[in-house]
Amino acid sequence: MEKIAIVGGGLAGSLVAVYLAKRGFDVHLFEKRPDMRKNRISAGKSINLALSVRGINALEKAGLDTQVLATGIAMSGRMMHTKSGELNYQPYGKEDQAIYSVSRGLLNIKLLELADEMPNITLYFNTNCVDANLQEGIAHFEDDKGTRSEFKADRVIGSDGAFSAIRYEMQTKGRFDYSQTYLDHGYKELSIPPTANGEFQLDKNCLHIWPRESFMLIALPNLDGTFTCTLFFQLDGPLSFNSIKTPADLDTFFDTYFPDVKPLIADLHHDFFNNPTGQLCTVRCFPWTNGKMALIGDAAHAVVPFYGQGMNCSFEDCVVFDEMIEKHYPNWDSIYSEYQKARKPNADAIANLALQNFVEMRDLVGDKDFLHFKHVEHDLAELYPGTFRSQYELTTFTNEPYKYALEQGARNSEMVKKIISLGLEDKLKDKSIIQPLFDEYLK
Amino acid sequence: MEKIAIVGGGLAGSLVAVYLAKRGFDVHLFEKRPDMRKNRISAGKSINLALSVRGINALEKAGLDTQVLATGIAMSGRMMHTKSGELNYQPYGKEDQAIYSVSRGLLNIKLLELADEMPNITLYFNTNCVDANLQEGIAHFEDDKGTRSEFKADRVIGSDGAFSAIRYEMQTKGRFDYSQTYLDHGYKELSIPPTANGEFQLDKNCLHIWPRESFMLIALPNLDGTFTCTLFFQLDGPLSFNSIKTPADLDTFFDTYFPDVKPLIADLHHDFFNNPTGQLCTVRCFPWTNGKMALIGDAAHAVVPFYGQGMNCSFEDCVVFDEMIEKHYPNWDSIYSEYQKARKPNADAIANLALQNFVEMRDLVGDKDFLHFKHVEHDLAELYPGTFRSQYELTTFTNEPYKYALEQGARNSEMVKKIISLGLEDKLKDKSIIQPLFDEYLK
Repeated sequence: MEKIAIVGGGLAGSLVAVYLAKRGFDVHLFEKRPDMRKNRISAGKSINLALSVRGINALEKAGLDTQVLATGIAMSGRMMHTKSGELNYQPYGKEDQAIYSVSRGLLNIKLLELADEMPNITLYFNTNCVDANLQEGIAHFEDDKGTRSEFKADRVIGSDGAFSAIRYEMQTKGRFDYSQTYLDHGYKELSIPPTANGEFQLDKNCLHIWPRESFMLIALPNLDGTFTCTLFFQLDGPLSFNSIKTPADLDTFFDTYFPDVKPLIADLHHDFFNNPTGQLCTVRCFPWTNGKMALIGDAAHAVVPFYGQGMNCSFEDCVVFDEMIEKHYPNWDSIYSEYQKARKPNADAIANLALQNFVEMRDLVGDKDFLHFKHVEHDLAELYPGTFRSQYELTTFTNEPYKYALEQGARNSEMVKKIISLGLEDKLKDKSIIQPLFDEYLK
Repeated sequence: MEKIAIVGGGLAGSLVAVYLAKRGFDVHLFEKRPDMRKNRISAGKSINLALSVRGINALEKAGLDTQVLATGIAMSGRMMHTKSGELNYQPYGKEDQAIYSVSRGLLNIKLLELADEMPNITLYFNTNCVDANLQEGIAHFEDDKGTRSEFKADRVIGSDGAFSAIRYEMQTKGRFDYSQTYLDHGYKELSIPPTANGEFQLDKNCLHIWPRESFMLIALPNLDGTFTCTLFFQLDGPLSFNSIKTPADLDTFFDTYFPDVKPLIADLHHDFFNNPTGQLCTVRCFPWTNGKMALIGDAAHAVVPFYGQGMNCSFEDCVVFDEMIEKHYPNWDSIYSEYQKARKPNADAIANLALQNFVEMRDLVGDKDFLHFKHVEHDLAELYPGTFRSQYELTTFTNEPYKYALEQGARNSEMVKKIISLGLEDKLKDKSIIQPLFDEYLK
């Protein structure tokens, strides 16, 4: 059977390794970090993920969904915290719908364990891809001692993340559209420990948001009773990470904007001044394949984290890649071209949705008109399930293409705006009034 | 005096070296190719440039304008060739205005000669920058035998072109917006030799265009009586570089679309099948400076060649960089930040103008409505010199910022469209009618 090298043993890389091994390929998975099953990943960088339907389906295909969901915490809606400490809850969907807070590290370990059990997957750690020959299918690695090696495969999959070495090789070998675009905001991780009794300090079944217009704090629950908080904040300017230089600056900032959460973060000063400030980047490129190589996951489309879809989208890449093998193997030209054709528009769509959602989360969720809009949308979804599906529902709770979610979301907005402008909010149950709008806006 | 390393001895690099040497800096200029004064550059890639006002001004500052113009050929307008061989001439500006066809190689040699005469410039050839330390001001080089060396300077200027190694270093070191976008068109160079008597086969004082809607051929005159032709053509598809596989395909293509120029290209088959097919890319990035390093020219903003402004824009970078030194030295932070602030919006504007002009050159120049539009525009410029200035005039014959040229060009279009829609073409001389339009549209 053909030999496949997978460069990058993160979430997408280890999942696609499992899929390919199930098809009988001779799979070799290269990860630059040490084996995370033996070494804890360094903390201080946000490691919570929101697993939703696309990701769950992809894990189901590997037989891991039940195990992973058992380690996750269901979040059924957003809990908004105003400056004065008022709470405002917005369900994400219907009663039984939730997204799941899961640990990136734990999920990665489960995938690697599964990979390791398969006889036709060989795992390599401390092997950092530094160069590649796209046409020959050769990847060059450097280990932690600086020793070089190379590996030649029939096909090579670059799942080496937002700073992909395989993608860089494509970038410098002719016709390859590429962009990396940073936000003016960065992020920093802070932690809310459990109470002395080991209990959660906030409702654990919500994704908590402290929206402050141009910046925000969020918190996601962990199994151990902690919450991982992430502050998304301007990097520079009069009120920014850069402007907070002293513990006193930090106290003033939290007293002003986050008075209710301040006492919950036990090591605020330590966390803030010691944890790194992360940056937020969107990466777009095309084509995703060149010679024997194909990109998957963040290597092909790094997105900002505000729709919670980065991992879900990467897992969906793996599913589609596997479907194309099912359909076209052994014609790799067709597998590669159909894979990138299917995924590229959806990766672009989720990148845009994630950028839009940042504005919604940090700013609009506190806006009265927006909340009214959301209520009408929610009522429509409740009254006409399966007919009216919100952008959030389409993105998070279905497998509809992201591109469709983006486009239908825009049409939904027009429809809801029309309902509000006509003052029809009380007549949503009257199908004779609403049906013409559905006819006009739903596609 | 401070030591400045310039990485890349192309047009921008050698010009900025001269400027900096005139200010007394200890300048070290590194070029990856052999010394082009001793070795001819390999042919087969378009090497004609259209020098216009910005470039001439920049050369004047180095004392080279007269010498360079003496080797250039004035082109005072576009000569359009229809399929049936009809000619249609559009002047670029007023009678005394022209752009100059100059040889890239010759111009580069003149700049290097000037640099070499200056005691405080050291030239290095066969030194390819492969890596850099932005904060320390260290550039790492590899010579043609693979031997490594490094050079540490107080400041390093990356003038290493569209595939800049310095820029790549910036790209991989955090917050750096970057995009490279390829056109679906590539280009190929062909050559029209002189007649047996050594005369030009076409009017030498024009830029010749054979617009064919989705593709085009152009020709620029050289001092030796030849014309350099460039075919801009789709790379792939039913009618494309890729579809022309045999000499018979090529003959059919030229017989169909360029019957008048076919007999003029003596070695059509040889040129077409032996010269490389070039690709066309727009590169945008920001910031242009990081640590001790700054980008200049194509390294900061590669543009497609359709406005003939690539070199002119790069030379203007050099002028502005030098002005910022004049203004802010020895405060390098200010020099760098003011330089990039001044140039970035203009580089973006000329990138967009160049993309727009491709559509105009290959398609619109054959369109009746467009030609009528151009006549009105031309009449306005003749009747109200200094008041009504076309986008082409602002870009090519003034030093107004490219951004202004782009914006005023859009306003001009609105104004001309209004004149045509009101049927005022015959009343352009009547200032009482035209002045209100100027009041509305000119800024």
